[in-house]
Amino acid sequence: MILEVATLQVHEGKEAEFETVFARASSAISTAKGYLGHELNRCLERKGHYVLLVRWESVDAHTVTFKASSEYEEFRRSIHPFYVKSPEALHYESVEGGLSESSRSTRR
Amino acid sequence: MILEVATLQVHEGKEAEFETVFARASSAISTAKGYLGHELNRCLERKGHYVLLVRWESVDAHTVTFKASSEYEEFRRSIHPFYVKSPEALHYESVEGGLSESSRSTRR
Repeated sequence: MILEVATLQVHEGKEAEFETVFARASSAISTAKGYLGHELNRCLERKGHYVLLVRWESVDAHTVTFKASSEYEEFRRSIHPFYVKSPEALHYESVEGGLSESSRSTRR
Repeated sequence: MILEVATLQVHEGKEAEFETVFARASSAISTAKGYLGHELNRCLERKGHYVLLVRWESVDAHTVTFKASSEYEEFRRSIHPFYVKSPEALHYESVEGGLSESSRSTRR
């Protein structure tokens, strides 16, 4: 199991619209082969900054299978215009601890 | 519920020792008031790079209550010497999705 951590910076004033569009578009991720879970988080200290966490069965499930899919193309087309610059995504394996699930979503 | 995301860079060659010391020291976090869960993750692309995720009941549980505790002092004393520079920690609230728990730990 792999954790993708993507840091996102959204254009000023576009945050609420981004969150709405993301919620609609995220089904493209959650139906992908090898997908295990995701969470979009809004930063409290930096306006327009988000971190997207996605659990995948493997790095390839994200970088090969998902990125070659038509669902990714659709996701990218609807979401990427909101980004100030191309997001940075890194992959991690768990060393210690097991994060509990966030129990609720908070929306503006 | 708040997610703390801390990005850590560990001195070259000290990664295995850091992971062992962290596992021992992390009880200082997990017994803190307002703590809900944590996960230390090792980056696959960048050597010595880690991301620490901690769920807290509130920002204050981390930045006020925990940071004023003797447990934090002990944690800091054992862990901070491994860092190349002071780690950056930001706080987030969940917008969408609920990340599943990592089901297993992988250790070198």
